[in-house]
Amino acid sequence: MTAREAALPFHDVRGRGFSRRSPLTDGWEWIDNRVVAPAARVLPLADCAGLRLADAITAVGDWPPADRAALDGYAVAAADTLGAGSYNPVPLTAAVAVSVGDALPPGCDAVIPYEAAQAVGPFIEAIDAVAPGSGVERRAAWAAGGSPLLPAGRRLRPADLGLLASGGHHSVPVLPAPRVRILLAGGAKAGAPEQLGAMLAALVGRDGGVVGAVGNLPANLDALAEAYVLPGADLILSAGRTGTGPDDVAPPALARAGSLDLHGIAMRPGGSAGLGRAGGTPVLLLPGEPMAALAAYELLAGRAVRRAAGLPADLPHATVQAVTARKLVSEIGCLDLHRVRMDEEGRLEPVASPGWPGLAAAARADGFVLIGADSEGVPDGAPITMYSFTKYRFA
Amino acid sequence: MTAREAALPFHDVRGRGFSRRSPLTDGWEWIDNRVVAPAARVLPLADCAGLRLADAITAVGDWPPADRAALDGYAVAAADTLGAGSYNPVPLTAAVAVSVGDALPPGCDAVIPYEAAQAVGPFIEAIDAVAPGSGVERRAAWAAGGSPLLPAGRRLRPADLGLLASGGHHSVPVLPAPRVRILLAGGAKAGAPEQLGAMLAALVGRDGGVVGAVGNLPANLDALAEAYVLPGADLILSAGRTGTGPDDVAPPALARAGSLDLHGIAMRPGGSAGLGRAGGTPVLLLPGEPMAALAAYELLAGRAVRRAAGLPADLPHATVQAVTARKLVSEIGCLDLHRVRMDEEGRLEPVASPGWPGLAAAARADGFVLIGADSEGVPDGAPITMYSFTKYRFA
Repeated sequence: MTAREAALPFHDVRGRGFSRRSPLTDGWEWIDNRVVAPAARVLPLADCAGLRLADAITAVGDWPPADRAALDGYAVAAADTLGAGSYNPVPLTAAVAVSVGDALPPGCDAVIPYEAAQAVGPFIEAIDAVAPGSGVERRAAWAAGGSPLLPAGRRLRPADLGLLASGGHHSVPVLPAPRVRILLAGGAKAGAPEQLGAMLAALVGRDGGVVGAVGNLPANLDALAEAYVLPGADLILSAGRTGTGPDDVAPPALARAGSLDLHGIAMRPGGSAGLGRAGGTPVLLLPGEPMAALAAYELLAGRAVRRAAGLPADLPHATVQAVTARKLVSEIGCLDLHRVRMDEEGRLEPVASPGWPGLAAAARADGFVLIGADSEGVPDGAPITMYSFTKYRFA
Repeated sequence: MTAREAALPFHDVRGRGFSRRSPLTDGWEWIDNRVVAPAARVLPLADCAGLRLADAITAVGDWPPADRAALDGYAVAAADTLGAGSYNPVPLTAAVAVSVGDALPPGCDAVIPYEAAQAVGPFIEAIDAVAPGSGVERRAAWAAGGSPLLPAGRRLRPADLGLLASGGHHSVPVLPAPRVRILLAGGAKAGAPEQLGAMLAALVGRDGGVVGAVGNLPANLDALAEAYVLPGADLILSAGRTGTGPDDVAPPALARAGSLDLHGIAMRPGGSAGLGRAGGTPVLLLPGEPMAALAAYELLAGRAVRRAAGLPADLPHATVQAVTARKLVSEIGCLDLHRVRMDEEGRLEPVASPGWPGLAAAARADGFVLIGADSEGVPDGAPITMYSFTKYRFA
């Protein structure tokens, strides 16, 4: 714990309520300053899809290492095919059958495909003329030894994996996907955050993280504080027990385990979200109510996962520019997330007010719109951006 | 093997070359008619992200099952708060501390947050008035028992998983991701298709498939025919040994194992691709040369994976409308794939001609353009669609 963290005030909201909530942008700033990608590791190519290269990769040698056949067919001396055509077959004295990748036999400087030749008894005739080099892949045609193949920071595409494998790089240094530990409060109550594991794991996967473990969030403050400092995770998502009830032990447990740097975000839903660090690991506190957990993940925690994964920090949802079908009322001082559905005229209709709990309304929605803390809402027919619940941008 | 399949002619191209190649659209038609999603299975929610529901899901009961607190705070009789304000605290005779999800105590019809109350010694005073029902989540507010939650065919979003879990549906009937077996020809030669495992697995994953196993493609025709009919896969990708050389045993092996329905596609690269069935399982034959394998996957095999996954069959790449920076020459009768890079003016510059082997040029490209079999090419400045190598559309 640094001196600065120790000095941060911890305001216990249990049984009292929030005296203030921080703007969401404070949470973003914390994430942008404190969350970094895990240290580079050398991983086998099969585990590297979509990850970023930590270092530039250069060709280990000339590649291909020698002239070779680029076709299945006959290796020939191009000069021997001079004048050949389908009405003028030319016998080839030195035709050698080769397959793609075979070294070029001595005396040959071209490969003609089987389609350009015909066998007449034991003899091969060319029925098409070729130029020297035709059908041949030259030494170093792909890359000369030491030349750059892929730059540092490259997000590895499928074809890059094939390129690296072809070049003999079977494992490469990458920024690994961050290991995210999910802790879920149990209990038979409304929030039932223990039921949010599949949802949160799917969101973490979308944002480039790997869910290492989904565990139980202890109801006891001391036990929870100990759970936060267990090693093995790059990021912790803790869902449930963030509110103002007497059993809402997540914020004080995080304060004890390290630092509770923000608790209470001026947004609806999700206003009891928080964040801090335990044992150097960022911990994101999500409310247990399912819709509040979704909102706090999308607007806050997801940014931390994407930062740790080296992906763009902004919201990953595809956006649609549209107009409101109805007035959307919003609370001043609070960022409001409205679930909306696009009607047949392409206008956005609210499905549920920001405070309405549960995911049934999210399932009926096509996406969400955000009304900033400085706004009382927007009239009907106003232009607005919808963030899609079904389509995502990828970089 | 059906009578129709047995009757299909098998043209052996080894040592002879292709007498004709089929248009790519014939391959698409075969895939659209023959490849179906695997049978529905009931899977745990954690394995269902992105899959399609096989059946509609309805609420098993009222949900919530009873009126309950939607806030942490005090359950009250709303009438008792009449006239309360910060300058007029009103003592509450029957305030009961409740947490989100707690059942509403008898006689209470609202919940006020801790922020709207203050404790004065052992007494609780309201400092804000509330209406009946405020802070209360009504029985069946999310869904009444038997009402529809999610329709059949729904592609499950993260929030849907939370919705289903909250409603007690911990496993649901879905169309499972197709299991794809990848067979790779070995050998030290150019194609080195054995090195394409990571690339093909990443592509299959992108298209909604699950790679069950990556195995060796036997060089022996009989052994390969047996490998094709092993059970356990919904789709087989076989890379390498598809050409006209004497060791190109994949097409005859597939003909022996079931049916070789197409071999030779009029496209560059990837013209030795093919497809057929073995033991009822679709088998896609990809060339072993890495760039040809990539093209044949993107233009042909990927469609089969997406069909089997219940995803839209069209190319999944995000598209960009742009103009050519240079003339692109194309061969009549052959669909040509040109790797292109976008220059600083946003024009598309060719990186390599369609026949140029290797993935180094694909790694330098931003995407590809397609020039149809009926075209000799396009002049510079012509409008054209680029398919991105880095961004994908998702439905």
